[in-house]
Amino acid sequence: MVPSDREVHIERIFNAPRERVWRAFTDPKLVAQWWGRGNKLDIERMEVQRGGHWRFVEHTPQGPQGFEGRFREVTPPRRLVQTFEWDGMPGHVAINDASFEDLGDGRTRVVTKSLFHTTEERDGAI
Amino acid sequence: MVPSDREVHIERIFNAPRERVWRAFTDPKLVAQWWGRGNKLDIERMEVQRGGHWRFVEHTPQGPQGFEGRFREVTPPRRLVQTFEWDGMPGHVAINDASFEDLGDGRTRVVTKSLFHTTEERDGAI
Repeated sequence: MVPSDREVHIERIFNAPRERVWRAFTDPKLVAQWWGRGNKLDIERMEVQRGGHWRFVEHTPQGPQGFEGRFREVTPPRRLVQTFEWDGMPGHVAINDASFEDLGDGRTRVVTKSLFHTTEERDGAI
Repeated sequence: MVPSDREVHIERIFNAPRERVWRAFTDPKLVAQWWGRGNKLDIERMEVQRGGHWRFVEHTPQGPQGFEGRFREVTPPRRLVQTFEWDGMPGHVAINDASFEDLGDGRTRVVTKSLFHTTEERDGAI
């Protein structure tokens, strides 16, 4: 969903309780299992608190790719806001704002709203 | 000047040749002399190249204040683009795009265009 010309909204529903989904997003050991989509992921830094930094290196078949950012809001288990930057386009920063909603039936809805500085950056990321 | 609802443009003219003004913005020893506006400035990191990071701590009368970001474009002596983030509002990132124009009479015009993610962030910075 593209609610404005600088945003992307992604909604995902997980068959897991909210606390577990929250941990999958914030515990480095769990993040390392899925974030690289099958590629090995080195978590160089992950300080899950307001103002903390994160930096991951994904080992893709094309070589290592670095990603980094900073946590802006950490409100367990409901909301996680962080900046996101790929080394390939340094200084192009998106804000990823993730909300975790308990659906009451053991499932969790995660809505991530990404805000870019420009439409071009948004379209490039899509 | 506020050319859009997310930008601020600042124009300054310096009585110095462009090469000297460029050095004043990119040589840590020179930056330390003016950036803190009279306050002591610790330059913890300043890698003036595309993708390089910078981090300054300004020792204000109210205590230390951290600032950091990343260089997005470094084109001596004409253009310097970097992100800017204050520790007090982590994850709120502005893009500072500075152009250095040789006025031909020993003076240099520096135009800095700052782009924020939101109007509220822009107004807060002003």
